[in-house]
Amino acid sequence: MKLLRVGTAGAERPALLDAEGTLRDLSGIVPEIDGALLADDAALGRIRAAADAGDLPALDADGLRIGPPLARIGKIVCIGLNYHDHARETGAEPPAEPVIFFKAPDTVVGPYDTVLVPRGSTKTDWEVELAVVIGRTARYLESHEDALAHVAGYAVSHDVSEREFQIERGGTWDKGKNCETFNPLGPWLVTADEVPDPQNLPLRLWVNGELKQDGTTAEQIFPVAEVVRYVSRFMTLYPGDVINTGTPAGVAMGHPEPKPYLRSGDVVELEVGGLGRQRQQLKDA
Amino acid sequence: MKLLRVGTAGAERPALLDAEGTLRDLSGIVPEIDGALLADDAALGRIRAAADAGDLPALDADGLRIGPPLARIGKIVCIGLNYHDHARETGAEPPAEPVIFFKAPDTVVGPYDTVLVPRGSTKTDWEVELAVVIGRTARYLESHEDALAHVAGYAVSHDVSEREFQIERGGTWDKGKNCETFNPLGPWLVTADEVPDPQNLPLRLWVNGELKQDGTTAEQIFPVAEVVRYVSRFMTLYPGDVINTGTPAGVAMGHPEPKPYLRSGDVVELEVGGLGRQRQQLKDA
Repeated sequence: MKLLRVGTAGAERPALLDAEGTLRDLSGIVPEIDGALLADDAALGRIRAAADAGDLPALDADGLRIGPPLARIGKIVCIGLNYHDHARETGAEPPAEPVIFFKAPDTVVGPYDTVLVPRGSTKTDWEVELAVVIGRTARYLESHEDALAHVAGYAVSHDVSEREFQIERGGTWDKGKNCETFNPLGPWLVTADEVPDPQNLPLRLWVNGELKQDGTTAEQIFPVAEVVRYVSRFMTLYPGDVINTGTPAGVAMGHPEPKPYLRSGDVVELEVGGLGRQRQQLKDA
Repeated sequence: MKLLRVGTAGAERPALLDAEGTLRDLSGIVPEIDGALLADDAALGRIRAAADAGDLPALDADGLRIGPPLARIGKIVCIGLNYHDHARETGAEPPAEPVIFFKAPDTVVGPYDTVLVPRGSTKTDWEVELAVVIGRTARYLESHEDALAHVAGYAVSHDVSEREFQIERGGTWDKGKNCETFNPLGPWLVTADEVPDPQNLPLRLWVNGELKQDGTTAEQIFPVAEVVRYVSRFMTLYPGDVINTGTPAGVAMGHPEPKPYLRSGDVVELEVGGLGRQRQQLKDA
């Protein structure tokens, strides 16, 4: 299923994009797309049954904003340098074990919302990523099979990053990862049953129409199952938590000088195979 | 005012500790102690008026669990190496600007709850801290005066840390700061009007009755007002966000070998002047 949330920011309603591409209202069946829903097999079953029976009212998609596909996100765990090609372009050694940093849930916006270039920023950068959404509480998982059983679904995530704040201002990467609007998510939360192999997804990103990133999750140093298993040994993952699993090569930081960092007016488009496409215009904060 | 939340975990009710030390029920006036309340001057005024008028029913404190004093925390921003004496003991240079890392809100437990030593941990460490609770949305603040006007109150925070996970396992500090139960908070949220000078608060921590940390916020490299101003330039702070402002000297990591890291059965007590006292027993996860 492709679950999403539509409406004005802060007042989204739950919806489903059906197999024919029609937007269907879920607000009569479930109150919200959130961790509680993802942990509730019965509620997910009711959505599926209603969709199959053709019982869901259609929504007029015309002019309707698409918000982030998940409400009440608990935490966003991010994996750094998780693609062989991206590690090479940044001049970093491939990490011996996953690099973890955080984004705050309040950085999440919809897939077509404006992204703000922070005041004082000269190095705002893009990163297309595969986001993993957790569906069951995960503590000290042992196996990759068990790890994947804790995944509710997947989404496109834009891990917007300010490289000076991240790398040159002291402290940890979090400083350059948490500016307002820095995590567009969606358009859909695609349930895991529709993503049989998360290690075979193309990822692409364009800036002002020019292809900048053209990768595949096959290049991930630590695949999704290992990331979930590993993270669960250091912190408990709860339904509605998100893991941004890293970005392939092609970010602005990896370009020769002058590096093409983002400025107000730029347009970024990004997609992950089967998970939909985002488009954001940059504006000054 | 001293605001708190009492009851079983996940079902706490809002309460107030009055000037005579009597616990008063707030559940008839406000639904919760959270960011929405802290941003609502009218609701805070109703609590104050009811307390002054003696209209609040007393609660029987006997056997009543005290939970964390704040619900629905949005994010927990942490400042590293923010005390001159702690920077010295870790062998680090005092940072040129604040070091930022994150704890997830799901690490927060009550001030007397159990703290879990993570599986595989040999370096679980303590850190008594002054927590700042945000009361108004803060973006790109300019002045220290304006920064303090965005602070709703203060609390005792225990920034439990696993040093191997934090420092020796690759990536950023977040990896050793986010284990389950790693952020006891409370007992109270003390409103800012009762803390006239946040730079003159004693902080102390004992392990099994032995004094380990004995500091003062006067030793902070970046005082509270500067921390709030600085952080607001890199991310937006919202009502109900928390900033852990760093720990003074005396952590296990700063001791000579063999360093006295925490083990199951140990008891940690900690206090910040005027903000109350915590006590946790360690158990294995």
